[in-house]
Amino acid sequence: MKLTADHARALEDILRWRRDMRHFRPDPLSEDHMERLRAAMDMAPSVGNARPWRVIRVRDTGLRARVRAEFERCNAAAAAEYDNETRANYARLKLAGLDVAPEHLAIFTETEPPEGRGLGRRTMPQTLQQSTAMAIYTLWLTARVDNLGVGMVSILDPQRIERIFDAPASWSFTAYLCIGLPAFEDDTPLLHRAGWQENTPTRWEER
Amino acid sequence: MKLTADHARALEDILRWRRDMRHFRPDPLSEDHMERLRAAMDMAPSVGNARPWRVIRVRDTGLRARVRAEFERCNAAAAAEYDNETRANYARLKLAGLDVAPEHLAIFTETEPPEGRGLGRRTMPQTLQQSTAMAIYTLWLTARVDNLGVGMVSILDPQRIERIFDAPASWSFTAYLCIGLPAFEDDTPLLHRAGWQENTPTRWEER
Repeated sequence: MKLTADHARALEDILRWRRDMRHFRPDPLSEDHMERLRAAMDMAPSVGNARPWRVIRVRDTGLRARVRAEFERCNAAAAAEYDNETRANYARLKLAGLDVAPEHLAIFTETEPPEGRGLGRRTMPQTLQQSTAMAIYTLWLTARVDNLGVGMVSILDPQRIERIFDAPASWSFTAYLCIGLPAFEDDTPLLHRAGWQENTPTRWEER
Repeated sequence: MKLTADHARALEDILRWRRDMRHFRPDPLSEDHMERLRAAMDMAPSVGNARPWRVIRVRDTGLRARVRAEFERCNAAAAAEYDNETRANYARLKLAGLDVAPEHLAIFTETEPPEGRGLGRRTMPQTLQQSTAMAIYTLWLTARVDNLGVGMVSILDPQRIERIFDAPASWSFTAYLCIGLPAFEDDTPLLHRAGWQENTPTRWEER
């Protein structure tokens, strides 16, 4: 299957206009949209084809409230480590769309999957975590072509999240995703708008 | 920036036809190709915009030989753990394009990057590794639209690879990539062709 210059141009648009979103509209997403996102993960690469990602679609308001409280706890602890001006910036980042995004996904990695028969992860078990990260990115890019926003929340304590979801002992918490329609169109990345961190280019060293 | 149904169709082609490649042609790649792959990584998401991936383009034959020897050592140890039939399959997988692929990249994660000011990784330092995995996938998809193959090698001992490249103490080895033109066109994934592991669908649990 030969891909073309049209594919290359489309991919560049998709990569360039992907954003980590924090500001959502509350409108519910269609089940068709959610099914497209679910199916996208099936196309992600994984070590030994193990597909170790485990996904909980979180609809229960009690569970959402517990995640939100955990985020607030970790966010307060993180903000206390910065000086005042930085802290103000930090607060302005409004790091979570947890309150508004209509869809929440809690994503874990099965660290002992029967699939894949251990191939490629004997010396590097972290390849399972890498596979889940790539599956998340696959969902993210698919959301982007559907003009949906995704926000990846990592200001959480993994072990507490595992307890909140009563996760099996072999599951490791990977990320919490908020998904919804973007609240506004502003193509400047949020961390740039807030003056947090400009881009540094990827340099390749040669040896 | 609204993306369109054309973008969605293109992305589906790209995701669906991406492969983990092991069989390469030895033909060198143009510097334009390599620059496109390097620049693609700049578009990857990263925690706090920290961009923690560190890339060494490995051209030195001595370094390549040391990586190959390390792969052989780990591959032999892994093969010994399977029974005979599985082992024969395993050998047939010919897991590395290390001998033929014209381009090799050794990819590390900077675990203490000054960029990003710690945002989002206080409770989950593994978000740095997730960022590097997503940068690798960004390169992989960009290679695919250019009809280049990428093989991700993880049958390696991370600490030994860090020593081979004399990596700074804060660098963690993430993956070794082989890149080149595909040796043949066969759209069946290698692990399927070898009967290693069929696909299991991604199921979302609802709560």
